[in-house]
Amino acid sequence: MGWVRTLRVQSSVTFIEVNDGSCLSNMQCVMDLEAEGYDQVETGLVTTGASIWVQGTVVKSQGSKQKVELKVIKIVAVGKSDPSYPIQKKRVSREFLRTKAHLRPRTNTFGAVARVRNALAYATHKFFQENGFVWVSSPIITASDCEGAGEQFCVTTLIPGSQEAANSPVDGIPKTKDGLIDWSQDFFGKPAFLTVSGQLNAETYATALSDVYTFGPTFRAENSNTSRHLAEFWMIEPELAFADLNDDMACATAYLQYVVRHVLENCKEDMEFFNTWIEKGIIDRLSDVAEKDFVQLTYTDAIELLLKAKKKFEFPLEWGCDLQSEHERYITEEVFGGCPVIIRDYPKDIKAFYMRQNDDGKTVAAMDLLVPRVGELTGGSQREERLEYLEDRLDELKLNKQSFWWYLDLRRYGSVPHAGFGLGFERLVQFATGIENIRDAIPFPRVPGSAEF
Amino acid sequence: MGWVRTLRVQSSVTFIEVNDGSCLSNMQCVMDLEAEGYDQVETGLVTTGASIWVQGTVVKSQGSKQKVELKVIKIVAVGKSDPSYPIQKKRVSREFLRTKAHLRPRTNTFGAVARVRNALAYATHKFFQENGFVWVSSPIITASDCEGAGEQFCVTTLIPGSQEAANSPVDGIPKTKDGLIDWSQDFFGKPAFLTVSGQLNAETYATALSDVYTFGPTFRAENSNTSRHLAEFWMIEPELAFADLNDDMACATAYLQYVVRHVLENCKEDMEFFNTWIEKGIIDRLSDVAEKDFVQLTYTDAIELLLKAKKKFEFPLEWGCDLQSEHERYITEEVFGGCPVIIRDYPKDIKAFYMRQNDDGKTVAAMDLLVPRVGELTGGSQREERLEYLEDRLDELKLNKQSFWWYLDLRRYGSVPHAGFGLGFERLVQFATGIENIRDAIPFPRVPGSAEF
Repeated sequence: MGWVRTLRVQSSVTFIEVNDGSCLSNMQCVMDLEAEGYDQVETGLVTTGASIWVQGTVVKSQGSKQKVELKVIKIVAVGKSDPSYPIQKKRVSREFLRTKAHLRPRTNTFGAVARVRNALAYATHKFFQENGFVWVSSPIITASDCEGAGEQFCVTTLIPGSQEAANSPVDGIPKTKDGLIDWSQDFFGKPAFLTVSGQLNAETYATALSDVYTFGPTFRAENSNTSRHLAEFWMIEPELAFADLNDDMACATAYLQYVVRHVLENCKEDMEFFNTWIEKGIIDRLSDVAEKDFVQLTYTDAIELLLKAKKKFEFPLEWGCDLQSEHERYITEEVFGGCPVIIRDYPKDIKAFYMRQNDDGKTVAAMDLLVPRVGELTGGSQREERLEYLEDRLDELKLNKQSFWWYLDLRRYGSVPHAGFGLGFERLVQFATGIENIRDAIPFPRVPGSAEF
Repeated sequence: MGWVRTLRVQSSVTFIEVNDGSCLSNMQCVMDLEAEGYDQVETGLVTTGASIWVQGTVVKSQGSKQKVELKVIKIVAVGKSDPSYPIQKKRVSREFLRTKAHLRPRTNTFGAVARVRNALAYATHKFFQENGFVWVSSPIITASDCEGAGEQFCVTTLIPGSQEAANSPVDGIPKTKDGLIDWSQDFFGKPAFLTVSGQLNAETYATALSDVYTFGPTFRAENSNTSRHLAEFWMIEPELAFADLNDDMACATAYLQYVVRHVLENCKEDMEFFNTWIEKGIIDRLSDVAEKDFVQLTYTDAIELLLKAKKKFEFPLEWGCDLQSEHERYITEEVFGGCPVIIRDYPKDIKAFYMRQNDDGKTVAAMDLLVPRVGELTGGSQREERLEYLEDRLDELKLNKQSFWWYLDLRRYGSVPHAGFGLGFERLVQFATGIENIRDAIPFPRVPGSAEF
């Protein structure tokens, strides 16, 4: 059972390529109209895109492209395909296919991406489960103030459900006597938002169950129309208790090597396809990642390296600047010849409030894992477990300590050294498939101006 | 390494119960202050809730409660616990613990729930992966109109991010010259909502990859303050291509038996805990589910059964009514003695538009899986794969066909019989643990008036 990819009629023999999505290869079905015992079918219904049910005998193929083929005994047209079927044999652009996101998984490329994405997700669960981590679902909607002033989506019922929203007057929104939005009438009784990270919540479970991980959707209301940004993406965030930055780096390394190996071993045919059609050499690149030791260096050493570089960068830099993609790629691709690199101990001023301050007073125990071609794949840190340091840092950044009451509680009651990292799952899919645009690494991308399907 | 659960001082010997969350049992650490080689520690820091690092020798326990204990050589206080620590030895109510959702995983009950929840999630992935299903991430934000007029949360950037939202004037929301909300200025250019189900999206992948499943958060902006409803919950939605209602029922049965068996085999200690403290007999109940054949009957037969029942129901019923929880529980618990029951072929008027119409013209190929104590655990159906039937049904229900263009496309191009079901993951956690309130089956529950943490 499957869908007709192509059809080739040769005098009395018809070749039908059928695919059911379970793998890249089609099954070549050979229909010999003159063969004995062949059950007649209305062949006009068997066109590209149609679904069919075929019965036959698997035989050695006479062609060179496949080892076996199906000698058809009986064929049933299950669902015909209207001639307007937009995915005909000739190649169609990825831009066009984004407008057909409901049909694009029927193409070789998107079928392969879906299978590799699936393999990466399962490998993620397998890795953490086999290592004793507990999966924790961090909340998606949050009214907690401590996610900061990021670019968040507001979640509300002050505007009515889908049918009526389009014609809702602004005046219909409840207001206080001062003309402000009356949040007391909203579903959660106060402003609520889509989460930008599950880390702070994961920390509460790590400081109870030791090692945990999240794997769920996160959101950015950033108006970035690039090939690297999505408004909705999946994130993996492990959090390790009784762990420092070295443990964190070791975990990120082991994780990445595990999932890459899993894909190389379990998605051979799809990876060959990517290697041929999407990114030449991707299999070698991934094999290197799976086998080589990752390079480690400090941010300070990285800056020194970059300042000495003969290459001219678009963004000049000095100690204290954040590294740009061009710098990261230079380091992994040119300095260390395609080897993943972990840079650690970043200046505290360019990193988040919760990162643990190093003894030098200038840097924090942060790390970024850089890979060739993609640049930063994950970022992590040891968390500040010392109450006084954390409170001072919140004050310095003028963040409201009250909002962080529960996060600070973790430091009041049995605080432990702990560390974790975050990994954008679609970046990982890009990294493992060579797919250039992140919109092609997720089934239904959400970007500024579009949340179709 | 772990957290001190309790502390018992007896003359020269101190017993410390330490737990690291990896299992229910504590490690009993015996600190003999007079023993040779014992490294002095400031024991004042070792109090309930504190984190410690202990080194010692595992020896046969002299007590009867545990087989082994740790003879302490060295102990280090890692993080002290403020005396205000709210989870002391004496029992605290679940209501109180909901206000301490960041600390409650440190209790026996919530630690066990977290581990069983994790086991159920992993078993879910294992079951589907081992059976060739591909995990598909259905979108969370959707501007697609075809989710209907459900009770949806609106997702918008017309209201500014968290810091400013509280003091935003209603007048600050962009409006058209007619005073309507100007959606063209919103992030997605039109009203967008949180998904209520990934099914329609999953169907697009099932009709390309054959068998798929989703496992992700879904939302209901329902103002239900009950022990069975959450505004944010996780849902599992498998979708099978080239499958009918019988295949769907077989899949739901195999899935449920698999995950229940997985938990019974892999969470023995936690299940004993639930059996003793939360729901007496739960292990027997689950063992029955894992082993017994499920009963199948039609809705029409179920109604007949209920009409004949000697029991008096709060909600009287007749053919055409939806079954209430009391009816469902009567059937599974009293008629079929604790065996799960699948009821199929419901009246079309009480079921969703996409369910396949049966030949009688009155019923659809829907099924509900009922289990003792919880009632409906999953609901599913064969989907209407015939374009004309589906279009007629949309017309009948006065739904806008245009919005369903891509869903209808699946019936235009190689339509196939397909079927699936949906399962609320937190209901499954309740079913497997005996936990009564669904707010205790998820780490951070979202309900009307509360999205804390």
